[in-house]
Amino acid sequence: MQFTLAELAIKFGCELKGNPETEVSSIATLSSALAGDISFFANKKYKQQLIDTNATAVILREADLENCSVAALICENPYATYARIAQLIYPIKSAVGVHSSAVVNVDLPKSVSVGANAVIELGAQLGENVSIGANCFVGENTHIGAGSILDANVTIRHDVLIGEDCYFHPGVVIGSDGFGQAPDVDGYVKIPQVGRVVIGNAVEIGANTTVDRGTLDDTIIEDGVKLDNLIQVAHNVHIGAHTVIAATVGISGSTKIGKRCLIGGRAGFVGHIEICDDVIINSSTVVTSNITEKGHYGGTGGFPHQAAKDWTRNVAQFRRINNLAKRVKELEKK
Amino acid sequence: MQFTLAELAIKFGCELKGNPETEVSSIATLSSALAGDISFFANKKYKQQLIDTNATAVILREADLENCSVAALICENPYATYARIAQLIYPIKSAVGVHSSAVVNVDLPKSVSVGANAVIELGAQLGENVSIGANCFVGENTHIGAGSILDANVTIRHDVLIGEDCYFHPGVVIGSDGFGQAPDVDGYVKIPQVGRVVIGNAVEIGANTTVDRGTLDDTIIEDGVKLDNLIQVAHNVHIGAHTVIAATVGISGSTKIGKRCLIGGRAGFVGHIEICDDVIINSSTVVTSNITEKGHYGGTGGFPHQAAKDWTRNVAQFRRINNLAKRVKELEKK
Amino acid sequence: MQFTLAELAIKFGCELKGNPETEVSSIATLSSALAGDISFFANKKYKQQLIDTNATAVILREADLENCSVAALICENPYATYARIAQLIYPIKSAVGVHSSAVVNVDLPKSVSVGANAVIELGAQLGENVSIGANCFVGENTHIGAGSILDANVTIRHDVLIGEDCYFHPGVVIGSDGFGQAPDVDGYVKIPQVGRVVIGNAVEIGANTTVDRGTLDDTIIEDGVKLDNLIQVAHNVHIGAHTVIAATVGISGSTKIGKRCLIGGRAGFVGHIEICDDVIINSSTVVTSNITEKGHYGGTGGFPHQAAKDWTRNVAQFRRINNLAKRVKELEKK
Repeated sequence: MQFTLAELAIKFGCELKGNPETEVSSIATLSSALAGDISFFANKKYKQQLIDTNATAVILREADLENCSVAALICENPYATYARIAQLIYPIKSAVGVHSSAVVNVDLPKSVSVGANAVIELGAQLGENVSIGANCFVGENTHIGAGSILDANVTIRHDVLIGEDCYFHPGVVIGSDGFGQAPDVDGYVKIPQVGRVVIGNAVEIGANTTVDRGTLDDTIIEDGVKLDNLIQVAHNVHIGAHTVIAATVGISGSTKIGKRCLIGGRAGFVGHIEICDDVIINSSTVVTSNITEKGHYGGTGGFPHQAAKDWTRNVAQFRRINNLAKRVKELEKK
Repeated sequence: MQFTLAELAIKFGCELKGNPETEVSSIATLSSALAGDISFFANKKYKQQLIDTNATAVILREADLENCSVAALICENPYATYARIAQLIYPIKSAVGVHSSAVVNVDLPKSVSVGANAVIELGAQLGENVSIGANCFVGENTHIGAGSILDANVTIRHDVLIGEDCYFHPGVVIGSDGFGQAPDVDGYVKIPQVGRVVIGNAVEIGANTTVDRGTLDDTIIEDGVKLDNLIQVAHNVHIGAHTVIAATVGISGSTKIGKRCLIGGRAGFVGHIEICDDVIINSSTVVTSNITEKGHYGGTGGFPHQAAKDWTRNVAQFRRINNLAKRVKELEKK
Repeated sequence: MQFTLAELAIKFGCELKGNPETEVSSIATLSSALAGDISFFANKKYKQQLIDTNATAVILREADLENCSVAALICENPYATYARIAQLIYPIKSAVGVHSSAVVNVDLPKSVSVGANAVIELGAQLGENVSIGANCFVGENTHIGAGSILDANVTIRHDVLIGEDCYFHPGVVIGSDGFGQAPDVDGYVKIPQVGRVVIGNAVEIGANTTVDRGTLDDTIIEDGVKLDNLIQVAHNVHIGAHTVIAATVGISGSTKIGKRCLIGGRAGFVGHIEICDDVIINSSTVVTSNITEKGHYGGTGGFPHQAAKDWTRNVAQFRRINNLAKRVKELEKK
């Protein structure tokens, strides 16, 4: 879609430098932008690209205006403003109306759209403007708040509560049973998982990520949480508001992660621990106990690759490190 | 559903303390239970909760009866008995009948249910009371034993054998091709995977877990195996009866895991190795060679997180540990 | 299907030893082969199996003919030739025609097949002989080249370009949004992902693997790349031709992997790094920086399991290794 710089400046509270009638209709990086594109500048290391850009306009901070020879939208947080303008230029396309092949067992608001071959079970409640993609499944008594979007092929099982303005990518599974097995003499007995999953507003969940329902109490994901692809959220996990978790992370049962945390890819959390607010975890770190002070934590993931030959030798020594430490102690005594 | 304590005591072989006519209709933890709830006590650390509980009845061992002031069902294994009672109170709801939108290319027993938009291909054989969820796919010549349940959106490819009373969660894929690629001068040639997947009775498989078919011989999962979410089971893997595997584990091709093993989350197994029966593997451990003695094994996953600054310094030293060991040896000579 | 040895020898350029009229109709390992089976010999350690085999014919190198008492197809690369012959004997079965339950919003070549309940959106373009499995979703303006196959339950979102002769397994998601979130005072703002995914010819992608679309530029997977199951390919990743990646690998955003690389299972790549051509990465290795020389690299994955007790002690020492190194330095000064 196409907008004048004046429209954008007013809508997003920016100061405008340049012709208010100038129009932009697409986004691009500073270096690849052409006429009609709007770009943004937020990182000093791209200063030369700002100077050289062919973008029609750039979103930037006031202090950087001196290096910009094209039109500019001036604001405090150019990256976030860029994200909002991009959302406006590229609105999410969703299904329109309820496709005739969808199987819908409830009454829906007129503003709801349901894609081909989607299935919505009895007792489900969908808010205004909810969009359900093709081949999705929405289980019994599940509630989905206004404006939330399920892309194609999402599975939400029964008795799940989802807030407003959420976005779930293809292959997401919400409300699968937690992994509860009681050992008995002749194997394991499945423990029914009767808790729910309760998800706040503005939560985004990436492709093929799984969120298990709680055993008795609920699994909880608070407002504004962003989960990347292929993440495992086990039963009774609680993720605090505005925490961001990168791909392939695994979170074991009953672990509580605080608000505004940043969790790197491939990190793992053992169960029944509590991570406080504002914690940053390096990618691949294994979190094995409570974290009670905000800060930046690393772990296994920090081993960088090295030549396989050197690695093998170091590992062999590592397996004897306890012995090495004793020998050093012995030497120190002498 | 609602049951009297007498009904439960008789059905599960418990001794009953209290009024046999008392009814329970839901389950809860000791601390959150209210009137009408049945709870259980199996872990001494919750003793005070047992003393204080408002549950209508508690499942416990005889030795713990003295701390229980409400009705009790007395048995040897309260946790397993609780699981069985919970299954009775919360029966699995499944589709009823064959939905008109399902595409079914075979004759089915009358007791089978098939959800909306599910697809069942030619030659598939389904046992009594099998339940196929919405949007599932069952491939040609696949057999599914009596009482097994596919939740929504499960994909079982052709020529897979599944036993009785299994439960597969949404997004599960069974029978995908093993990863076989023959290198040639101009790239790789796909090796057809013509083995099957053979799955025993009472197997549970978690959301978005994948089980590849064998290359020539079969991939085998024995009775009572429980797999959590997002697990990879490669071609020709063999998992022994009653082994339990937590989420995001990866098992490489042709690896054989014994019976009654417990595998922690995020563990990995290289290919073509054999793990004996009754092995416990720590979460995140990388298993790189055969394990021939039962016991408890750890590995990479044991590095606990620490302040990122300390971690970085330790890693830097680790990269020189082989040199450090040599220097200690040198010192010892003097 | 059944073929004479003469047909196979001519089709695949092999020299034939034995009766040209002899027929084979199935494949098997040397040790399990029976009459009618063709097998192959490529690894000296199975020499005794070659001597003893009951296969009707064996594919092998000329030098190994002396140990073969049955018919033989002689060629340079028996493993690749075996793969090609196996493809001929076991052709991929795909849907025939367009199932009446499929929702197809475009014109298709007559040679295209579409399974039950699949959905193909406006603007999609499918080449000759493309096969779309049951319950698949193909988004708007996505192009799929001739001969490519989507197994059941694959999701390809809008504006994805896929080459010829590709194979995508169940649960694959292509074109999901990259994980782009701009921090702002009250949480994160989603950054629209407007790039595409561009996939070359002869690419195979395993079950439940996810490939995100680019933010502005495209995510690129070149010809002949083979991805196993449950792999995460983030936005703007570029994977070079004929690179093979094992299961559960995670590749962070904007990372470029060269041609003909071999990546072991569970490996991880941080973002914005570049791996040159012809690199081998051990399984579970964490790649944290550019690799500019071809070769073999290891990392975290190399820690073999050990008794949990020994592991715990070694880990405890590792956490003090920086201190240990200082103490050795102190001793050396004396």
